[in-house]
Amino acid sequence: MSRFFSSKYKNLTPYTPGEQPKDTQYIKLNTNESPYPPSEKAIKYASEASEKLNLYPDPTCSALHEAFAKTVGVETDMVLATNGSDEILNFAFMAFCNENCGAVFPDITYGFYSVFAQLNNIPYEEIPLKDDFTIDVNDYIGKNKTIFIANPNAPTGIPLSLSQIEEILKGNPDNIVVIDEAYIDFGNDSAVSLIPKYDNLLVTQTFSKSRSMAGARLGFGIASKEIINDLNTVKYSTNPYNINKMTIAAGIGILEDNDYTLNNCEEIIKTREYTADALSSLGFTLTPSTANFLFAKHNKISGKEIYSELKENGILVRHFDKEKIKEYNRITIGTKEQMETLVSTLKSILEDR
Amino acid sequence: MSRFFSSKYKNLTPYTPGEQPKDTQYIKLNTNESPYPPSEKAIKYASEASEKLNLYPDPTCSALHEAFAKTVGVETDMVLATNGSDEILNFAFMAFCNENCGAVFPDITYGFYSVFAQLNNIPYEEIPLKDDFTIDVNDYIGKNKTIFIANPNAPTGIPLSLSQIEEILKGNPDNIVVIDEAYIDFGNDSAVSLIPKYDNLLVTQTFSKSRSMAGARLGFGIASKEIINDLNTVKYSTNPYNINKMTIAAGIGILEDNDYTLNNCEEIIKTREYTADALSSLGFTLTPSTANFLFAKHNKISGKEIYSELKENGILVRHFDKEKIKEYNRITIGTKEQMETLVSTLKSILEDR
Repeated sequence: MSRFFSSKYKNLTPYTPGEQPKDTQYIKLNTNESPYPPSEKAIKYASEASEKLNLYPDPTCSALHEAFAKTVGVETDMVLATNGSDEILNFAFMAFCNENCGAVFPDITYGFYSVFAQLNNIPYEEIPLKDDFTIDVNDYIGKNKTIFIANPNAPTGIPLSLSQIEEILKGNPDNIVVIDEAYIDFGNDSAVSLIPKYDNLLVTQTFSKSRSMAGARLGFGIASKEIINDLNTVKYSTNPYNINKMTIAAGIGILEDNDYTLNNCEEIIKTREYTADALSSLGFTLTPSTANFLFAKHNKISGKEIYSELKENGILVRHFDKEKIKEYNRITIGTKEQMETLVSTLKSILEDR
Repeated sequence: MSRFFSSKYKNLTPYTPGEQPKDTQYIKLNTNESPYPPSEKAIKYASEASEKLNLYPDPTCSALHEAFAKTVGVETDMVLATNGSDEILNFAFMAFCNENCGAVFPDITYGFYSVFAQLNNIPYEEIPLKDDFTIDVNDYIGKNKTIFIANPNAPTGIPLSLSQIEEILKGNPDNIVVIDEAYIDFGNDSAVSLIPKYDNLLVTQTFSKSRSMAGARLGFGIASKEIINDLNTVKYSTNPYNINKMTIAAGIGILEDNDYTLNNCEEIIKTREYTADALSSLGFTLTPSTANFLFAKHNKISGKEIYSELKENGILVRHFDKEKIKEYNRITIGTKEQMETLVSTLKSILEDR
């Protein structure tokens, strides 16, 4: 730390992203990427855009906003593209929380929420999940705080139903409820359909998972025009050209190939079911995940050991040290072939015991 | 504004980026882009990267950091890549200013500094330029505030010498001095050479101007390891994957083609001298700009009128409404051909008077 660093950040603990090994020798099941490449149009449009990089991107992202709004079925001025969904989440903490209006989220969820709260000097409350890792909706009624819910939740993969989300929205009519839908496309209904009914709803989505674009950094906020307008004020005061030209182009390309995304999601759901069954047969306990990952523990080997032995065998999964979940590993759903390798590797690891 | 918007931002006036017309019918001399496309390697590497967008980028940007550090002649852990130089500037306001340590910068400079200060709730002082639009170094001694100086300054293009910058660094040994070198490559010496001598110096650069990559969004901070470490704390608490895979690749490509950048800069300097002479002959008054733009006024026609008449004739330049500079226009240096068209168009406009 330099002697110049602002005292307000001296206790800030940054987020730790999953390992990104520079070589490609691992089967990488640790950061919930898609095993499928971006669509042909996404690649083509991005490549074409790279030839014109001397010119600034369109700061209004109008063509991309239009394509995305059409895909999710809202008006163009009800969406805002950001540099990954981390950026829209940070904008939400900036715009809709402050010292007097804190944040609230589950104790087990996306680890970045607490970092954003600390970064922005926002008091926050972490509500324990129930013992079965589900969210008790009653814990989120009348909070007088801004609510952040990942749906399905991470790293458990367990979803809330839309009627449960409605209960939270109704129970906090004067506060923003952020529904972080990073993993919505793997078997759940989006809360976007609730936006016309609830002016306190902000939905966030990402192109990093179902849309095969983690490397491009593209996220979205979807909400009423007024909320998007506030988020635009933050964007234009932070980084007006927040999305580069190639990502804008790739985003338009992948949206034009929407069937490709839908097919990939179906494939991942099938592979998830295969993997869940196989891991259960090996004695793993799993949460009922509806995301592109599983969350699994074994009663014979610790979570940390499974992580380490898999890594030794060339497979990366994500382990979290947090006490309540330290016996689990989060395992991304890759291709069928990758998951077969995972299953046979786990089988050998267990046989050696 | 929604009823949920945080009161702290209710008076925030966002930055207004230059017009980015969606059609390409204009000769675009309004946002200081390079008239030259990115280098072949930049395009090739970016296109290749677009095929692997399903995987996250390297959050440490290690290959890009290494290439950039080598180019500017510092150690790899003395640089940090950001999503355009706006992001590194915002990080600097976040990390090195607070309620007790305000910011100071000239009254006429990059318009985003005051927005960043407001966004981060930082008190700021704007020091008037001298009548000839130069900075008086004596105004920046013993400020007890974080100092932001664009060198050369925008929109005047007038530089400080390295010895003047040293005076400011020596005069504020306990405060960070940020030297924003967005336009350094068009005829001035970088303050990077001063970093080993001054632990309070943070230099920022951008690939948007000399390196033909405005569309890719790539900026850098260059400073002591300790300062870069602080900025990394902010980055990993804000957006760990702040640079996408294609921009990382394009950045490495353009750095490998460094001669291409140097040749383009030489060409732009020559074209600037041609244009400055031609405009002087037409009766314009110019600041002694050493950037990739000129700053010019005419005693017969108002700045606003010149802007409007040029726009009617298919040429976009940048006009600022600020009282002290409202008679001027900032004119980006394009290709020789584009500038010949500008000169002949201005000639016709003046003849019609």
